[in-house]
Amino acid sequence: MRLPRPAWLRDYRRDCLPGDVSAGLIVAVMLIPQSLAYAMLAGLPPQVGLYASIAPLLAYALFGSSMTLSVGPVAVASLMTASALSPLATPGSQEYIALAMQLALLSGLMLVLFGCLRLGMLAHFLSHPVTSGFISGSAVIITLGQLKPLLGLQFAAANTPALLAGLVSHADAINPLAANLGLATIALLVFSRALLPKLLVGWGLRADRAGLIARLMPMLTVIFSTLLVARFDWHLTQGIAVVGAVPAGLPSLWAVTPDLPTLAALWLPALLIGVVGFVESVSVGQSLATQRKQRIDPDRELFGLGAANIASAACGGYAVAGGFSRSVVNFSAGAHTPLSGVISAVLMALVLIFASSWFAHLPHCVLAATIMVAVLSLFDLATLRKTLRYDRGDAIALLGTFFGVVLVGVETGIVSGVILSFAVLVWRSAHPHMAIVGRVPGSEHFRNVERYSVETLPHVLAIRVDENLFFGNATAVERALQSRLAAQPLAQHLLLIMSAVNRIDSTALEMLLSLEQRLAEQGIQLSMAEIKGPVMERLLPTALGKRLEGRIWLSAHEAFLSLAARAA
Amino acid sequence: MRLPRPAWLRDYRRDCLPGDVSAGLIVAVMLIPQSLAYAMLAGLPPQVGLYASIAPLLAYALFGSSMTLSVGPVAVASLMTASALSPLATPGSQEYIALAMQLALLSGLMLVLFGCLRLGMLAHFLSHPVTSGFISGSAVIITLGQLKPLLGLQFAAANTPALLAGLVSHADAINPLAANLGLATIALLVFSRALLPKLLVGWGLRADRAGLIARLMPMLTVIFSTLLVARFDWHLTQGIAVVGAVPAGLPSLWAVTPDLPTLAALWLPALLIGVVGFVESVSVGQSLATQRKQRIDPDRELFGLGAANIASAACGGYAVAGGFSRSVVNFSAGAHTPLSGVISAVLMALVLIFASSWFAHLPHCVLAATIMVAVLSLFDLATLRKTLRYDRGDAIALLGTFFGVVLVGVETGIVSGVILSFAVLVWRSAHPHMAIVGRVPGSEHFRNVERYSVETLPHVLAIRVDENLFFGNATAVERALQSRLAAQPLAQHLLLIMSAVNRIDSTALEMLLSLEQRLAEQGIQLSMAEIKGPVMERLLPTALGKRLEGRIWLSAHEAFLSLAARAA
Repeated sequence: MRLPRPAWLRDYRRDCLPGDVSAGLIVAVMLIPQSLAYAMLAGLPPQVGLYASIAPLLAYALFGSSMTLSVGPVAVASLMTASALSPLATPGSQEYIALAMQLALLSGLMLVLFGCLRLGMLAHFLSHPVTSGFISGSAVIITLGQLKPLLGLQFAAANTPALLAGLVSHADAINPLAANLGLATIALLVFSRALLPKLLVGWGLRADRAGLIARLMPMLTVIFSTLLVARFDWHLTQGIAVVGAVPAGLPSLWAVTPDLPTLAALWLPALLIGVVGFVESVSVGQSLATQRKQRIDPDRELFGLGAANIASAACGGYAVAGGFSRSVVNFSAGAHTPLSGVISAVLMALVLIFASSWFAHLPHCVLAATIMVAVLSLFDLATLRKTLRYDRGDAIALLGTFFGVVLVGVETGIVSGVILSFAVLVWRSAHPHMAIVGRVPGSEHFRNVERYSVETLPHVLAIRVDENLFFGNATAVERALQSRLAAQPLAQHLLLIMSAVNRIDSTALEMLLSLEQRLAEQGIQLSMAEIKGPVMERLLPTALGKRLEGRIWLSAHEAFLSLAARAA
Repeated sequence: MRLPRPAWLRDYRRDCLPGDVSAGLIVAVMLIPQSLAYAMLAGLPPQVGLYASIAPLLAYALFGSSMTLSVGPVAVASLMTASALSPLATPGSQEYIALAMQLALLSGLMLVLFGCLRLGMLAHFLSHPVTSGFISGSAVIITLGQLKPLLGLQFAAANTPALLAGLVSHADAINPLAANLGLATIALLVFSRALLPKLLVGWGLRADRAGLIARLMPMLTVIFSTLLVARFDWHLTQGIAVVGAVPAGLPSLWAVTPDLPTLAALWLPALLIGVVGFVESVSVGQSLATQRKQRIDPDRELFGLGAANIASAACGGYAVAGGFSRSVVNFSAGAHTPLSGVISAVLMALVLIFASSWFAHLPHCVLAATIMVAVLSLFDLATLRKTLRYDRGDAIALLGTFFGVVLVGVETGIVSGVILSFAVLVWRSAHPHMAIVGRVPGSEHFRNVERYSVETLPHVLAIRVDENLFFGNATAVERALQSRLAAQPLAQHLLLIMSAVNRIDSTALEMLLSLEQRLAEQGIQLSMAEIKGPVMERLLPTALGKRLEGRIWLSAHEAFLSLAARAA
């Protein structure tokens, strides 16, 4: 097989090299603690996180379309992996690891398939409110879930209420040293995110360097706490849980082939991990690309992320996606091409070959603290506030997703969020805005009689329907038209102004046909004006189109003149 | 508790009496074989069908809103009952009967609840194509399923492929006498439906009387075949399956209270039976009411059907709905009020008290034949043909529902149909029609540049977006706008004409905001015209609304004039 030679590699400009190399280095330094921590979050041994930080980066560099997206283990995909697999196998077991690889493989294959079908638009089924509610909900359960390793506790909990109950009932088993170490780490990391950069800038440092130092703090904390634990043998004397032996050397290639029952259990989580990862990656990648006036191609992005997941599965890793914070660091550290990802991958491989024993004494409570601080920024209150103000229905979808995730689980949460957003959509269209309109005096314009002072004719009821006509509102529209006709007993013509109707489905078409017939029996003629081209083309050959012949006008104005003349 | 006194009873007009009485009589004669046959279809003993033909009719007469709907056992609800309960208990067992009553109770309670919440509109989530595909699919599996009793076979089959395989593998067990009796009945009934009325009219009979005689044929067939079987003891000598002993007397009142696991298993089928029964009843009731210029009230109809199902459950029956053919017969036999239903109920009660032993020798194969002929008319090819011609997406929803029902099962079929119809809806809106428009010379009207010869300005790109803006099409709209801007490099203004945009959700709002900002960086101004009142009210207070200040015009014409002046 010949590897593709992506455009960025073919036309590589020398002057990008320094930026790419330094960004690759910095991202690798971030990636080491993150990959260990997210593997823990996913219920996997630490080396799986490291494996997922090598091959996927190379695969994405070959197939992806973003120049600066940093692919690898991320919080949400790790959480979703844990949620999908913990009912199926014991976290950390060989079976669990094999399932995690199969999940990544399935997810990758689905993304590639969607790419082949050019289904990048599938992602649009996730609205912003649902995505926001999902991410915030995930941040909450990740934070709550990390309380266990943070406090040195170990117990199983299937959902948030069980977890909270478990924390209370296990309170006497809290390891005070672990808790102190963890809380100190949180305090330090929050300080270095929120205050350290300003402080350093105050001391005369350049803003970008100050930011960079702050970003390195998690790595420094990890090194320092590891040394501390190792020095005092706290894992033996104080019962501090540590990462333990990490097998040295590169992962071997695996051939993972899920059987049918596994497929049945994993297809939905695989789909959700794939789609959520895709949506997040595209939105991060796009917002970075925009700053450099580049664009990313969603369909190629499907291939890139799909290839990254397949590579992860083949090399002993688990589901990956584009990470938000790492991508931002990569971008601002000067990465201009995916070479920076290649350099990170090489560094991670070197770490795995030469330095894996260094992690043996890394304490779980510190990893938990780094995760908790990292996901803090995922909690998105701003969108909730904005959405509540702008659109009540969207806010319901957001909150429904959030509470679904927190109270029931990630999969239920996102699926019910999607269903909710569609239900809101239909609910809205089910009660369309319909305005009785009249002519603005001396013009050819027609406006709502309630908002403007306009001319009307007593024997013509002109109504503008402000919605596509479909099965969800056909009956409601019919009833609304009937009741407005009842309020204007002199009406001999019902003129529907169709400028805002972009589609009539077959349920609505049948409704209009039976309405026309019923009105004709009552001596009222149905007419239409301003039908859109595409609607007209489909309407004309139908039974309704034929009955309406001679009663369809190009503009409301023409209809008005013609109907006015008929009365006289 | 005092019973309600419905309006029809308070204001009963004497002259309605003869029509109501004779219609009640004729419907009862139809109802006897139908209730026995549909009980068999539902996997229930014959008396349950008779029980479901008494109390529900009385309850509907008290609470329903249609004057002529004939409520009772129907084919689709019987099929859905069998499909929901056969995985849970052995058909015909006491447990199965109890579950059938609980299913009817749940279904009735849900309908009453929906009535209290005035959720008649829930029914609108079932589009015509989905309903049509569902009914046709049900007709197919009912017909195939009745092949077993028709041929005198007995075996279990979970789905259509298993049923067909079973028919082949049990071919040597076919009872030739049962098969002949059944096929002869089918031939006779098809003849009396298709040809007999015309023949009788040819002989000088009035058309309505001829139709009536044809409608009585199933009852005559049942009587004749019962006499035949009883006379020759075919159930003993030839192994013809018969109805057997039907307990005499009225049903006793039951208090059925489902427990939690039963609730979990039955809520979805109960909801589907309720909603499907409601949609069918309203559409039959409405089409009959329209012929007499009456209307039915969907919300009161929920109470009527709900009460009928609760009454059925309380009196040992199972799920009921408004039947199509019986209602038509009731209507054309002269029923003007629900008194006709009361009379049918009284007659059914008398049959149960005095004549239940008469059914002992009624052969199953003849009942199967009456069912098969009755559901023939449910198969709805006309809608498929019409839908295929008018709307490919609706046709996909129809066929998806049909094949879902036939190949997998009734519940999967209808649920996947509903999901499919929503998916089609979103898919459609995902690629909205967008037209570049220009001014019709000498007028204030703007039309598609591809359909009309219109005036445009080189520095203004005016685009009319023919769709609501929402999460499903936000990205597609953005990309389409960008690519059209790229094709008009002189453009300094992008004017969006919003006359067909009835809603902007928060995902689309964010898209527009970021588009506006990106365009501003490129030196292109975003403007809008003809924003609808309700959209404007929500848009103005947002960040986008504030940025657009001074660039929102009432009409495209004003925008055009103002933008033309700016270039000069």
